This record gives sequence, structure tokens and C-alpha cells, in this order.
Amino acid sequence: MPNTPISIANFYSVNHSKHPVKTIGILGGGQLGLMLAQSALPLGIRCVFLEDAPNCPARLLGKVYSSQQFDEFAKACDTYTLEFENTPLNSAKVLEQTVGLFPPAHALFIAQDRLNEKNLFNTLAIDTVPFLAVNSFDELQNACDKLGLPLVLKTTRGGYDGKGQFVIRSETDIKTAWDELGKACETTPLIAEGFINFSREVSIIAVRSKQGEIRYYPLVENVHHNGILAKTEAPAPNVENLTEQAQSNIKKLLEHLNYVGVLTLELFVTDKGLIANEIAPRVHNSGHWSIEGAVCSQFENHMRAVAGLPLGDTSIAGPSVMLNVIGEYPNISEVLTLDGVHYHGYDKEERHGRKIAHITIMPTDSEKLTETVEKVVGLLPNKLGM
Amino acid sequence: MPNTPISIANFYSVNHSKHPVKTIGILGGGQLGLMLAQSALPLGIRCVFLEDAPNCPARLLGKVYSSQQFDEFAKACDTYTLEFENTPLNSAKVLEQTVGLFPPAHALFIAQDRLNEKNLFNTLAIDTVPFLAVNSFDELQNACDKLGLPLVLKTTRGGYDGKGQFVIRSETDIKTAWDELGKACETTPLIAEGFINFSREVSIIAVRSKQGEIRYYPLVENVHHNGILAKTEAPAPNVENLTEQAQSNIKKLLEHLNYVGVLTLELFVTDKGLIANEIAPRVHNSGHWSIEGAVCSQFENHMRAVAGLPLGDTSIAGPSVMLNVIGEYPNISEVLTLDGVHYHGYDKEERHGRKIAHITIMPTDSEKLTETVEKVVGLLPNKLGM
Repeated sequence: MPNTPISIANFYSVNHSKHPVKTIGILGGGQLGLMLAQSALPLGIRCVFLEDAPNCPARLLGKVYSSQQFDEFAKACDTYTLEFENTPLNSAKVLEQTVGLFPPAHALFIAQDRLNEKNLFNTLAIDTVPFLAVNSFDELQNACDKLGLPLVLKTTRGGYDGKGQFVIRSETDIKTAWDELGKACETTPLIAEGFINFSREVSIIAVRSKQGEIRYYPLVENVHHNGILAKTEAPAPNVENLTEQAQSNIKKLLEHLNYVGVLTLELFVTDKGLIANEIAPRVHNSGHWSIEGAVCSQFENHMRAVAGLPLGDTSIAGPSVMLNVIGEYPNISEVLTLDGVHYHGYDKEERHGRKIAHITIMPTDSEKLTETVEKVVGLLPNKLGM
Repeated sequence: MPNTPISIANFYSVNHSKHPVKTIGILGGGQLGLMLAQSALPLGIRCVFLEDAPNCPARLLGKVYSSQQFDEFAKACDTYTLEFENTPLNSAKVLEQTVGLFPPAHALFIAQDRLNEKNLFNTLAIDTVPFLAVNSFDELQNACDKLGLPLVLKTTRGGYDGKGQFVIRSETDIKTAWDELGKACETTPLIAEGFINFSREVSIIAVRSKQGEIRYYPLVENVHHNGILAKTEAPAPNVENLTEQAQSNIKKLLEHLNYVGVLTLELFVTDKGLIANEIAPRVHNSGHWSIEGAVCSQFENHMRAVAGLPLGDTSIAGPSVMLNVIGEYPNISEVLTLDGVHYHGYDKEERHGRKIAHITIMPTDSEKLTETVEKVVGLLPNKLGM
């Protein structure tokens, strides 16, 4: 079929006199933006996006402005939010100071820099791995001595999905690591993080309203492959004794940052409890299950918070598992043959290592969950999620 | 905020090589079209619409063609379906004969005429009220004698939401009814329907795939106000002994019509079992609860069937109640304060008697369902649904 341009004279109507916010501008236009806009539509909220990637997923739900059209974007909306934490901080600050940005630009400032982030964790008495800033090869050598090997050397900025990291396992790796990442030091320090033994990776997502109300989604367990999330199990099994610590940690962050919207905290499970890894000041891949698996999804709750509406119920509707579709599409007809399978394509081209869809599995009979997950994994071209 | 025109160069991408259908054209662009398109989006299916109403709800999800642009619409899609049964039959036949229309145009032919519909019911041994065709005042007088009073005189075409009907309660009403509806006889007969005593109104929604698989949603109970649906309870209480008859009835219709997609059958509950009232060859207001309340909604299942994809699970996820918002919006902030409430606005202007939104109530603790429904009804300007 031909690519048909859409031409609609009045995309945004103004007939919801009882709705507090009509148009929300989103910094970023990926699948998170798409799903935020989808969840906002029934609430009478329209979204537009600031995004330079051509054919970004969110274009299906609203107008996309390029960064060159920032001034126009900055006048087009009632309020703003973000779906991409590598948004330029200056743009965020402009919107915050003129119209309103939720979450606050300061949360973005923290999340954009691993050193800021870990320092804040420690300030708030949230446990982390031991870490040191690295500004030179000598400082790297010193960090290896103090923290011991193995350790992970990371850029403080810009890395995601496992990029910008180097695991130093032996003395000979130190020079290689420096050769690969050292030049990033010209602008910002690197961070050396000590290794910890952890048994599982979990995350907690919470949402805070403009009135300061906080609601927590259950802890979920995440499985990564090559640094990319492959699978989320909601709720995480056997976390009864961890939930209080996770909620306490994220509450401290939400309140310290005077945060509005959804915040995600990634954590490691160790013998001594939870160790904070990083935050994402936005809806998160480990919360996609909540579209079907929670009463009110992370997407709807974020948009409710940003729009100044009351928060929705974060309780689970039933146990679910989310699998990412990475790189290559499965045969959708085969996937949809299975009962309780929810397919979410992002309208993205196939590309190695790219998240292009996700599948949430939530059969009515939760005893069939594991079996159905195995069947779906078997249908994925890369079989990730076993 | 200003009404911003959307200008997207490549609205429809073509990167889903493993998806059998990419663009589906929908006859009609109301809220049913909007919700069909929303459910299709994650499956990689884009929708366009044929609709003359300016600012129709579905415009938010895809291009809208006017009836003057029919030829262009008829070339734009991989296959076609409908969301409005008063679609011109000729348009439906053109699409069916050239590209493909699901459900078939013959189902539309049946549903567009109450006499065709009731005659088909009787042909298939599906119980109806006693009825007679009325082509003249004499035939009306004769029908009143044979069927007894009260009876309902209806146009065979074009009526919906209680329009085009007259209840004849006494001899003196006969002339008044004829004065009001008689002139419709110039083109098509009227239908006189005998009164029956029924205790409740229920409906069953089922979906049939291109391979002939059929899945049934549970029977739901509907409450109308002035002929307009006000409330649906899913599942309907105390229908254990009625479900088999309802499923058998709709199965006969689906198979006789070689139907593909969602079909709705409205029924009355009487002392002697179920009496068929009418069909809708489309997704139906009494199935809106299924967005949250069923594993796979009526909207997604209809689009799956039309696209040739496997059907989804029609099981309920939990008991729910759907309330229509008719004429005037509630304060959305007040409604969203209640846990387990799902708000679906249609982006329509307020107007007396018009369906402008619906609210599905499904708290995690189903014991709180009745209490929450009462609270929501209390927040509706017209308090319908008590």
C-alpha cells in the first residue's frame, strides 16, 4: 500500500471543558512516546513530540517537531514531559521555566550522569556498589587498586542498553579499557564501579502526583541479554522481604527531587538486600507489562500525573511476563495463536539489537504462564527470554 | 491551545514483512472506528475511514475520506470492514467485489432491515416476538387486531437508539402512529411487533475467523434509558441456563451468513427463554467493557478476524460494569479518583442524548464493584445507570 499522507484540519479539538490539560508535549518520540500517547487518548489528552529520528513510532499518534522546530514545539502545548533521558538539559530547562515540565529538569540532570546519580543515592542513604570517579589513567589505576578487580568502567553520560561500558577483569584489561573509553574524560569523568555478587536484577516503578501522592507498582524481575532487557516477570517472585526497602528507596528519590510522573529504579538483589543501580526519570521497559497486567498502566499513570489528574491503581491484575522482541520480528500469526498473548509492535524497521516490539503474556489461568512464555520464546527469532 | 494541523510525510510504514495485512479501511469513523483503530495499532495494522461527519472521533487515528472520495478510499487499503450498519449497501458491495469486505455485505443487508432480520431469525429457528409487515393503514389496523395491543410500530430501516419507533397502547394511538411513521411506507414497509413480557435485556457478542473458528464473549446484561444503552454488566448475572441458547443462536447466524468479524445479538429474557431482538454486524456498545474486562477485546478480535489473524481469548478477566456518558461530560478528575475506573472519551462535543464517552469499572476487589459503580453514577451529570 502507498504511504498516504495524513491531512486533518483539526487534529486537536477543544471540547473537553472539564479536562484540565489538553495537549502534552513529549521530549522524544520512540515507542515510549507512542504508548504514552495511546494511554492519554481516552483521557482526552493529545500528544505532540520533539524528535529528530525519521519515521519515529510516536508519529502515529501526533505531530512530530524536529529539534530545529523547538521554538514552535515550546509554544504548542499546555505542559511538557519526556520519554528519553538523553534529552538536552537546556531544552528541558527552557520548557520548565516557561510552561512546565514534569518530571523536573533536575531529575534529568541527575539521571544523565552516573556520578550525580550514585552520589545522590549515597546522600539519601540508598545502598550502591562502591564507586570512584576517574579523570585520568592514573585515577583508573588507583580505582582498580582500591575497588579490586573485576570492575566496570563506564562513561558517566550517554550510555544505555549496555553501551559505553568496559569490564576490567585483569591488569592487562586496564590499558585496553582506557584506550576505549578514556577519551570521554575530556568532557566528563568516567566512573569505576566495584563488582558485586548479585543473584537477580529487579526494578521498581512508582508514580508521584502534583499533590505528592505516591503509588508503587510491584517489584518486577528483569533478565538482560548483552545489556538489553529481554524479559520482565511481574510480580518478581520471592521479594516479600525486599519490597519495603525498594519502596523506601524510591520514595526518598521522588520526594527529594519533588518529582511528578513515573520514576524507575533498577536494583540488584544481594545477600545484604538491595543495591541501587540506576534510575530512569520516565516510563520504563520493565513496566510494559502494566498495560495489561496492572489496573492502571505506567503510561496512563504518568500522563495522569503530568496532566494533574488523580493517580490510578497500581495493583496487579494478574501475574504476567513481558518479552522484548529484539532485532527481528516473529511471525505474528503464530504468536497470536496462543491465548493470553498481547502483541505490541512499535512500527520500527528490523535492526540488530533494536527493540522493535514487546509481547506480554497473561493467560487467565496463571498456571499456564510459564508454559505459554516458553512457547512464545520458541517463536522469537533469537529465542531470548528462556 | 490552537488547533494544529498534523503533517506527517510517511504515516503508513511498510516494514512489517511478517504481517499479513497492513491497512484496513473502515466504513464509518465514529468512536467504534476510533477504538478499532486503537486496538489494531499494536498489531501493526493502520486504519483509514470513510466518514462525512466533520471532526469524527476516528480522525485521531488515521486519514478520513469523505463519501465523495469513495473511489480513492476504495484503492487505499488491503481490506475493508465497517463500524456503522447504515453504511450504503452499494458501497459495501463495491468493496466486497473488488478488494474484500468483512463482514460480508449480505450481513449488512440483513441488519439494515428489521423485516429481513426477523425473517432470517425465524428461518434459522431463532425465537422472536410475533411480527407483521405493514404497508398501509389497513395493514396496520389488521396487525393491531392480530397481534393485540400494545404493540410497537417501527420503521424497518434507519432507526437506532430508540428513534423511528412508536408504541401503540390504545385504539386512538393507531392513527397517531400512522401519521408519524406512515410516510416511511412509501419506500419500505413498516414492521408491527407484538409486546412481550421480558425481565431483562441481554446481548451476546461473538467473533468468527476466516477459517470459521468462533469464540463467544459471555452474555452481558444491558440497561437502556429512552432507547439508549446506559449500562452493561459483564458477565450478566444468573444466565447459566441461557448461555447455551444464546451461543447456539449467534452460531447459526454467523455460519449462515459466512460471517467474518464481530457480530452482536441483542436478546430479551422471558419466562420461556431468550427472544432475539436484533443484530448489529459490528462491534457493539455492549462490548466496550471487553477492553479491560476480557483477555482480548471485541475491538482487537474484530481486527484480528478481518486481518486474517488468529482469534484472541474471549474469557473475562474479571467482573466489570460499563456506563455510557450521555450528553454531558462528568468532571474527569472526580471520576479518576476512584480506583479501578477506566475512562474512555470519544473527543465529541456535548449534545443531548449523544454518547460522548464510556467508563468501565473493574476494581481488583470485585466486591467493591457495585459500590464503585454507584459512586461513578453519582458523578455523571444525568445520573444514568442506577
